[in-house]
Amino acid sequence: MARWEPDARLRLVQAAIDVYAEQGFESSTVAQVAERAGLTKATFFRHFPDKREPLFAGQDEHGALFTAGAAEAPANATPLEVVTAALDHATATFTAEQRAFGPRLRAVVAAHDELRERAAFKRAHLAEVLTTSLRERGIPDPTAAIAADLGVEAFHRAFARWSDGEGPSYGELAREELRALHAAATSLS
Amino acid sequence: MARWEPDARLRLVQAAIDVYAEQGFESSTVAQVAERAGLTKATFFRHFPDKREPLFAGQDEHGALFTAGAAEAPANATPLEVVTAALDHATATFTAEQRAFGPRLRAVVAAHDELRERAAFKRAHLAEVLTTSLRERGIPDPTAAIAADLGVEAFHRAFARWSDGEGPSYGELAREELRALHAAATSLS
Repeated sequence: MARWEPDARLRLVQAAIDVYAEQGFESSTVAQVAERAGLTKATFFRHFPDKREPLFAGQDEHGALFTAGAAEAPANATPLEVVTAALDHATATFTAEQRAFGPRLRAVVAAHDELRERAAFKRAHLAEVLTTSLRERGIPDPTAAIAADLGVEAFHRAFARWSDGEGPSYGELAREELRALHAAATSLS
Repeated sequence: MARWEPDARLRLVQAAIDVYAEQGFESSTVAQVAERAGLTKATFFRHFPDKREPLFAGQDEHGALFTAGAAEAPANATPLEVVTAALDHATATFTAEQRAFGPRLRAVVAAHDELRERAAFKRAHLAEVLTTSLRERGIPDPTAAIAADLGVEAFHRAFARWSDGEGPSYGELAREELRALHAAATSLS
């Protein structure tokens, strides 16, 4: 049966957030999420490998965006300038839908250990990808790792503020957070 | 049936590392781990809630040790000095057994996504605990979060070096890593 599935991926993400928020993650099924989205279970599994992944949709793309953004920084850019370029490139892709469901998404993840675990893993992966970009530019360890950590932290802090309705653009908030994190890192002693 | 179980916990940790390294994590069972340790499955579950936890034994204690160490720092200590006190306190507890099985433990975790996921979560939790200690001393956000991140990163980097046989003490390696990370963080721009 061919089905009409425009925006199937986005509908599944929104349905997953709704279903998990209403009845808890553990007692929810893929079938329920698919049904809420008006799609089949088979369609769900064409987009996501398991019940957790709709909540992290796009996070693999963020790594690719960081890499592409970092590559655009000039050859003589400082580590912080490379991270800024990566953030600028990644934050530019975020949509009004993502802003709208950000707070509920974060609440669902925060309420379930199994989801917080996946979130921590995704975050670590994103930091590794950015570290690799920095190292490939000749930035040594541990500078590359620290710069990447600040970048990923800024990315997440800015997303929380942006999806709570703060600020004119995600990109501006991310730059602001990165500056604040860097200032904090230089004033520890 | 009463069983003689001295060091049952440590034997289960070592058995888990052996069994998972030999046959892979997914195809291993709690019964096999218990049998390898010469203990019952019931004993396993008195010590650990699931198949993954033996590999992270002690990580909850690390948080408590960080908290206790941070509390011992003088009132006028800088954020970096508080983190150093936390590291000193936590690293002092590590035993020769932990040093001996460190490399195999890290190899098993690195080879399985499900274990890397748990490791990322444990690490995030440890950073949260240390952040809380710093904030309770009046150190504001994001300084507390950055200081805690550097501390947890130093803790893990030093453990890798120490269990690979480097250096006279874990504590010295942790201090060295923290200094290197802080130096890197101040030279990003």
